[in-house]
Amino acid sequence: MNPIRVGLLGSGIVGSGVFNVLKRNRVEITRRAGREIVVTQICARNLEKAQALVGNDVKVVADPIQMATSAEVDVLVEVIGGTTISKQATLAAINAGKAVVTANKALLASHGNEIFAIARTKGVPVMFEAAVAGGIPIIKALREGLAANHIEWVAGIINGTTNFILSKMRSQKLSFEEALKEAQRLGYAEADPTFDIEGIDAAHKLTLLSAIAFGIPVQFSKVTVEGISTLQSQDIAYAEELGYRIKLLGITRRHENGIELRVHPTLIPARRLIANVEGAMNAVLIKGDAVGATLYYGPGAGSEPTASAIIADLVDVTRLFTADPEHRVPSLAFQYEALADTPILPMSEVKTATYMRLRVADESGVLADITRILADSNISIDALLQKEAEDGSSETDLIILTHVVKEGAVNAAIARMQMLRTVKSKVVRLRMEELS
Amino acid sequence: MNPIRVGLLGSGIVGSGVFNVLKRNRVEITRRAGREIVVTQICARNLEKAQALVGNDVKVVADPIQMATSAEVDVLVEVIGGTTISKQATLAAINAGKAVVTANKALLASHGNEIFAIARTKGVPVMFEAAVAGGIPIIKALREGLAANHIEWVAGIINGTTNFILSKMRSQKLSFEEALKEAQRLGYAEADPTFDIEGIDAAHKLTLLSAIAFGIPVQFSKVTVEGISTLQSQDIAYAEELGYRIKLLGITRRHENGIELRVHPTLIPARRLIANVEGAMNAVLIKGDAVGATLYYGPGAGSEPTASAIIADLVDVTRLFTADPEHRVPSLAFQYEALADTPILPMSEVKTATYMRLRVADESGVLADITRILADSNISIDALLQKEAEDGSSETDLIILTHVVKEGAVNAAIARMQMLRTVKSKVVRLRMEELS
Repeated sequence: MNPIRVGLLGSGIVGSGVFNVLKRNRVEITRRAGREIVVTQICARNLEKAQALVGNDVKVVADPIQMATSAEVDVLVEVIGGTTISKQATLAAINAGKAVVTANKALLASHGNEIFAIARTKGVPVMFEAAVAGGIPIIKALREGLAANHIEWVAGIINGTTNFILSKMRSQKLSFEEALKEAQRLGYAEADPTFDIEGIDAAHKLTLLSAIAFGIPVQFSKVTVEGISTLQSQDIAYAEELGYRIKLLGITRRHENGIELRVHPTLIPARRLIANVEGAMNAVLIKGDAVGATLYYGPGAGSEPTASAIIADLVDVTRLFTADPEHRVPSLAFQYEALADTPILPMSEVKTATYMRLRVADESGVLADITRILADSNISIDALLQKEAEDGSSETDLIILTHVVKEGAVNAAIARMQMLRTVKSKVVRLRMEELS
Repeated sequence: MNPIRVGLLGSGIVGSGVFNVLKRNRVEITRRAGREIVVTQICARNLEKAQALVGNDVKVVADPIQMATSAEVDVLVEVIGGTTISKQATLAAINAGKAVVTANKALLASHGNEIFAIARTKGVPVMFEAAVAGGIPIIKALREGLAANHIEWVAGIINGTTNFILSKMRSQKLSFEEALKEAQRLGYAEADPTFDIEGIDAAHKLTLLSAIAFGIPVQFSKVTVEGISTLQSQDIAYAEELGYRIKLLGITRRHENGIELRVHPTLIPARRLIANVEGAMNAVLIKGDAVGATLYYGPGAGSEPTASAIIADLVDVTRLFTADPEHRVPSLAFQYEALADTPILPMSEVKTATYMRLRVADESGVLADITRILADSNISIDALLQKEAEDGSSETDLIILTHVVKEGAVNAAIARMQMLRTVKSKVVRLRMEELS
């Protein structure tokens, strides 16, 4: 059989990984796929760098659209990032009847509905295993491996940079700023780390997971996002004292009346497997009604882990190449016409247990005032930790863990606490999940 | 489109799970598969029980071959177990051009080569996600999700019964016999637990994992198998003291000259995620050259977890139903004609680090004799723990951890130690793996 011809858009870390792994494992991949997968064209900003990567057998092309629509390309692999050229090239390839394999979560989270709709009319597959959790085959697991299940929730550590920072803050008692610097020094964080540390990258990925878990369109604009840049190491320490770890989780959960969609630092019981995922690793925990909880763990980024996911998609595309489009696995796991318009719940309707830290005056009556406010709001206290005032200080830390309660009620109670004279600084509020 | 019609062979725990989940999640599964999946016939030893399960809409059949070859059945789901009727019905279905989905590891581990060969000539898929690690989509992950990789090794906790027993022995300091009784009381172990506790069930599953990891035929007869029935709780305690946990692992690893294939109790560092998999849960760790290490965790048995895996296979079969057989995913992950005849290494050639416990006379010169034997055999000591003799005893425990060394050399050294007058009972030898 003729080889499947790949047009590789991007020659950076991921692009070079794809080229190198395809070359190194050519024989083994062909033994699996039944057909060779060959990069025939490459397009990159820096033509010389691209040429150096691919040698003389591969055509180096300057114009992404030209490559995406070339008669000598069967599949476009888009690893250039961004949402401008990547989108133009993706749509050009789809319109030319070519399959697309992409690692671009930002593109799909923001423009996925448009892209999948056009791909559907053209009958071409758009695959994105590499867009979520790097080398972990999480899209395939959720889309195909758990196809029997009514998915109840998905919770994942889906950003390696922030998990690295949180691991360092906990294990070495660093501040956020110190841990970020260490992450930058080791190449885990970019010079401008905003996308990672503010949770935006995780929100892109969660958007895709939520869509394929519940059969809904991608809805990035509806994700509630809180990053870790304001997280303080003392809260990590208090959490640990109470038997919890703090992880930046992407959480999406289905209820009768809608779907939760949120990224934020989260306290989880330290004994959970996912609480022990350290460093830049990723892990996704999925709860299905039939299977129960399953967990998927591995490297969430990097040249060859990402290439592993892209090439798995290429093998799938190769197998399906002559198949009837109606019988392919749908891009969003559910048949296009079967997508649902289940609403995304506003955050005020979301229920979680809550961790609060209050800096309070070390005087009598403080605890009575605060617990009264909670009682008035029907918020039950699950645990309470009052620290002794440090030597010479007239203030102390009060940590309260609440039972599960609506976010709106917690916000209202915190606003009232904040007005107490004895509450000396901004109340810290973190959400908790049992994940059981 | 017409529904896919399933003939369900077996109405026990797994069969009823398949029926119930297909029924409960009918709408959601159809939204994914694009086609309804309906049980149209059921065959079971106890016809009344089968009838009670399926109600009046499903035909209850007494003869498995009749159902397997029925014109009203598209796919045979084989969940009857054993290797006699299950094999006859599986081959009858394949010969009649029907797809087969099976949870039967014993059948495939022993007769897989024959079954896959006939399925290949008939162009029908034989799927077995449920045969390994229950609800975890590990077959799909390894066969498709990691298709880009040269797989280096696979190590898994793939028997829930033994993991439950080992967890109990460690956490509650029970003997093997006590923990087994508890497992039987809770339904985690059968009245005759031999298949589980002697590692045979794990060996069946490992046989399948090895085949799809490395593209080799199934070779159950070549698995080295040691169970946990002779494991003593003091070794679990000593392991813990040294920073290790003991798990029954199935391990298959590729070398230049052959493939390791072995099931045995194994010391692994307590800080590894897989070391913290407790109770009846399963987990499989896979090392690929591109992706690195990924881990898959979840329930390894039970009615609905197993049904989850079977129905995932049914959805795949549904999608591929009209596809050209040449473009389906091959049963053993690699194209049939691309299977390799890489030899399985004899155990004497396998290298591992080793844990030894010797019961020795509490007298001078003992340690010198033992370390001399190790030195003569070029076996380096990694750690040594000598316990004080218990009050009134003239014997004591000596624990030695060795560096990685060939099994044959360890066996020879142990044989020599065993002949020392000062070594008072059978030397306990356990293998260790770093899994890094």
